[in-house]
Amino acid sequence: MTPRLQPGSDPNLSDLLGRHRCGHALEQGFYTSDEIFAEDMERVFLPDWHYAGHVSELPNPGDYLLFEVLDESVILTRDAAGDIHALANVCRHRGSRVCLEQSGHTRRFTCPYHAWTYNLDGSLFSARLMSTDLDKTKLGLKTVPVEVFHGMIFVSFSDNPATFAGARAELDPLLKPFGLDRLRVAHRESYPVQANWKLLIENYNECYHCAPAHPEYARHHAMHMEFERFQPLNEALKPRAEALGIPTAMIDRVGVNCPAGSVDYTVSRQALFEGTDTGSDNGRPVAPLLGDLKGYDQGACDLYVGIFNPMLIYNDHAVIYRFIPVDTRTSVQEIIWLVHEDAVEGRDYDLNRLTWLWDVTTKADKFIIEKNQQGVNSRYYEPGPLAGMETFTQRFLDLYLDRMGRPA
Amino acid sequence: MTPRLQPGSDPNLSDLLGRHRCGHALEQGFYTSDEIFAEDMERVFLPDWHYAGHVSELPNPGDYLLFEVLDESVILTRDAAGDIHALANVCRHRGSRVCLEQSGHTRRFTCPYHAWTYNLDGSLFSARLMSTDLDKTKLGLKTVPVEVFHGMIFVSFSDNPATFAGARAELDPLLKPFGLDRLRVAHRESYPVQANWKLLIENYNECYHCAPAHPEYARHHAMHMEFERFQPLNEALKPRAEALGIPTAMIDRVGVNCPAGSVDYTVSRQALFEGTDTGSDNGRPVAPLLGDLKGYDQGACDLYVGIFNPMLIYNDHAVIYRFIPVDTRTSVQEIIWLVHEDAVEGRDYDLNRLTWLWDVTTKADKFIIEKNQQGVNSRYYEPGPLAGMETFTQRFLDLYLDRMGRPA
Amino acid sequence: MTPRLQPGSDPNLSDLLGRHRCGHALEQGFYTSDEIFAEDMERVFLPDWHYAGHVSELPNPGDYLLFEVLDESVILTRDAAGDIHALANVCRHRGSRVCLEQSGHTRRFTCPYHAWTYNLDGSLFSARLMSTDLDKTKLGLKTVPVEVFHGMIFVSFSDNPATFAGARAELDPLLKPFGLDRLRVAHRESYPVQANWKLLIENYNECYHCAPAHPEYARHHAMHMEFERFQPLNEALKPRAEALGIPTAMIDRVGVNCPAGSVDYTVSRQALFEGTDTGSDNGRPVAPLLGDLKGYDQGACDLYVGIFNPMLIYNDHAVIYRFIPVDTRTSVQEIIWLVHEDAVEGRDYDLNRLTWLWDVTTKADKFIIEKNQQGVNSRYYEPGPLAGMETFTQRFLDLYLDRMGRPA
Repeated sequence: MTPRLQPGSDPNLSDLLGRHRCGHALEQGFYTSDEIFAEDMERVFLPDWHYAGHVSELPNPGDYLLFEVLDESVILTRDAAGDIHALANVCRHRGSRVCLEQSGHTRRFTCPYHAWTYNLDGSLFSARLMSTDLDKTKLGLKTVPVEVFHGMIFVSFSDNPATFAGARAELDPLLKPFGLDRLRVAHRESYPVQANWKLLIENYNECYHCAPAHPEYARHHAMHMEFERFQPLNEALKPRAEALGIPTAMIDRVGVNCPAGSVDYTVSRQALFEGTDTGSDNGRPVAPLLGDLKGYDQGACDLYVGIFNPMLIYNDHAVIYRFIPVDTRTSVQEIIWLVHEDAVEGRDYDLNRLTWLWDVTTKADKFIIEKNQQGVNSRYYEPGPLAGMETFTQRFLDLYLDRMGRPA
Repeated sequence: MTPRLQPGSDPNLSDLLGRHRCGHALEQGFYTSDEIFAEDMERVFLPDWHYAGHVSELPNPGDYLLFEVLDESVILTRDAAGDIHALANVCRHRGSRVCLEQSGHTRRFTCPYHAWTYNLDGSLFSARLMSTDLDKTKLGLKTVPVEVFHGMIFVSFSDNPATFAGARAELDPLLKPFGLDRLRVAHRESYPVQANWKLLIENYNECYHCAPAHPEYARHHAMHMEFERFQPLNEALKPRAEALGIPTAMIDRVGVNCPAGSVDYTVSRQALFEGTDTGSDNGRPVAPLLGDLKGYDQGACDLYVGIFNPMLIYNDHAVIYRFIPVDTRTSVQEIIWLVHEDAVEGRDYDLNRLTWLWDVTTKADKFIIEKNQQGVNSRYYEPGPLAGMETFTQRFLDLYLDRMGRPA
Repeated sequence: MTPRLQPGSDPNLSDLLGRHRCGHALEQGFYTSDEIFAEDMERVFLPDWHYAGHVSELPNPGDYLLFEVLDESVILTRDAAGDIHALANVCRHRGSRVCLEQSGHTRRFTCPYHAWTYNLDGSLFSARLMSTDLDKTKLGLKTVPVEVFHGMIFVSFSDNPATFAGARAELDPLLKPFGLDRLRVAHRESYPVQANWKLLIENYNECYHCAPAHPEYARHHAMHMEFERFQPLNEALKPRAEALGIPTAMIDRVGVNCPAGSVDYTVSRQALFEGTDTGSDNGRPVAPLLGDLKGYDQGACDLYVGIFNPMLIYNDHAVIYRFIPVDTRTSVQEIIWLVHEDAVEGRDYDLNRLTWLWDVTTKADKFIIEKNQQGVNSRYYEPGPLAGMETFTQRFLDLYLDRMGRPA
């Protein structure tokens, strides 16, 4: 139980939306109210697209994988024809979880409770001892919207999810050189964070904090600098990238720039400091080059498909960030490191070197984000003005407020 | 905090009742809503009768025993005349618990806070330093409805509890051979279950799951079979039981069959597989015969007095199941094993053999019930059709829905 | 989740206030409802004055100290001019905690997130990379009301806190001999108590329970006795105190006796048993005499400034009680032991002897208060009549009910 934090500010969504001051942080209730959290999940988190796995985790027909978030459990399967399915892991009889293993290989799924059995596409194969007039065609596992994009499997919990057509048309040529469908998960790590999920995303979207908080990152990356100092580095990157056949076009379809009905997406190529090949302790490579790449342009791609799954693509590895809400004041930050599918640990890369930078950076972020939540809980908290370097955080806040129903 | 699981299904009791489809499982809100849980406790759990102890635990005047559930604590006492009392363990001064020991022997109870003192029947013996016009006759410990039925002490938290008259008239002759008032508690075990209490009762009331989930049980018990295969075994049981003087009449006064104002009750004699004397690892006896029994008819009684305390009476031991709600998604399954009062552990029975079957079966049930709750939490959960073998589960659901106020 | 404890008694504040019977304990809802707890914090706890530290903990300019309660964190600082400030520990940018150390010495506070920097008086020193038209004068750390009273630093979370003028005028001469501004914290201890905060205060304010619950206390203190037996001891104390220049006047400005707009305060000198110099295992001194005292009058002062910080002043040490709400059914009892600023542990006092009495007494209180909460949670709880020895508890209840809005 938390006392009402600020008298008169009982978190009513429309009041909170109405009080928001453009260019400022959000009101307290957005970070502390259970009712707002429930609305967040319904209006923003669940309908969006979520990175749920990589096709390399389901190489053969009959392979399956669980994807779980909040109270949802989804079985990702590959059927005999090679197609990927996403099935709600909820028996159509009395609701038991049907698949209990995190991953595996099977011909069918048998519910552990009463042994109803389902095929890899979710259809009901058999229901023992049920009345003979049971219509099995109506009792298959429910399907969940799924998209496979450059080898990445995305799932949405919307009945009417945003489309990938625009993202495919614009991003396919830009992502092609990295061979993202030929990656392999090298490591994944979950960092519990005692803070509202929005504080994690706000943190990720600005590098105003990088200079004070991330000395390891700032040694080789340039985004903690002001635009005027950073932009020339990006200009210098272009010929290096082009020489290697790496596109540098920036596509930005997030928030107000997102076409109606489309998933939000963006890609850009950002300069590392000169002499820095990749995100690592010393800027030197940590794994074999991805896809068709022939060398290091000393840049990295920022890729967004949906707002919950930013991806950083270095030339020799990729990193996916997942922001996972748990409850109003609890989240999990998951980091997934991917390498070329042929790369072998020990021979081609050292796992500690591969994961070092974003592990240390995420731990530092966890610390400051938790202190942010603590301060936001106070009755003395008042949303302050954002800096110019917080433009993308402000863009996230605008997108969030619009989805929450802010009047136009 | 859980997000609203299914949009538009905010758990409003009358909506939930109205949406219920006959012959199907319950809607999600019945298993996930804190408001519904509070209503469950008020309308169904607290007013019903609960097995609180056995007279063998209070053999002498001055003996006492605590019975605790939810926020309630009841002192069961035996007074100088030998009568059993059930007293609310709440001081009439400022509300402290008065009795702190789980069981013991005393002449009076002295509150640990300000030393008000109560007699074994709850009346106030003394209140030190209170004004002289204090009316002590109005400040005794409050009494809680209590019934002693074949040695079993039942307690209700209703102001107007259901009566035992019918149960006594119909069940006394059928239970007499088992000498239930001459039992002794051999063991009790609590199994925490992360699930709503109703999922535990639904599970207990059907054996549709026994074949897939309980190989140990299905080896010697026959209820996991369809009616057509099971019924002949029951017919074959009758002459064996009658030869031993064991009644086989079935009495069924549960739900719609329950006379107005009466506690629900039912008893039936069910066949074990031929060659199976009792519920044990190998079907062989585990303890001395109960009461006046002269042998094994290879059957067992199912006895209900109230819906929260099913009892299984083998010829050589009895097992009481208690379904204990804790909160919306947490329960405790308690199992109490009873043997003849003269049976001595080590000499007459081995505790491991006695408890093996229902320990392994309850652990298996805990597992599947928890998976059931997890699936029911999903937005993709939809109540499915019940099987013919789930008739008693359906009866429980009907009884539950009626008590929750379903329109006739 | 707790079920609605008493049907028909959903805790509506005005109903609860209306049902209160004068001279009786409070209704259940006051101790069990999260809504009432939130109101308690807003109306009673947060606006009152809280002991936050002692000036001896901030001897030099640049020293600071955190005071934290509920979701609030306050930085107490001493500036270059020697003045004490109380600053809300919430960055004016995006709300991070600014000061993370429990205490220390600094010239300025730099926020760990984006490095905004504040002076010791809270004013904003610098905000890097912000737009040039930022009005820094409007973005200092918010200040929290603070008062220094005889060396004790008090903080309130009210916008319009009660004044200290009356307390200073009446109490200054009575407290002077004890030199409270020349104390030093010898020890502080936190005792978690699973009970509503009001049960802790009710307990502290009566000694009706001392005879049954506190044999160690009752050996040397006399307050567990009835007024008629206790009063002569107080009369006998007067000449002893006067001989040592210790005032014995009783000032009582609590509740209805409190002047409008003033903090509640009270002081009185109470007799110990003859031969008892101080609160200790054997009644013998445990530390050097406080302030200007020349000897032991075998009495002790009860001092209240605000209702949450009672202080017991023996001739050789002082003890502050802090009642700290955590949530509806959880509190912390903090005890702070203070000695003369020149007293050195090991040489002048033994810490175990100093803390023994109130440690053992507080542990005993924790036990009975938790049993009190358990009983109050029951549907059978009914507020009972208070004893004559519970007069001060009743006064607290009246003050509480008035602040909660009881109609006059």
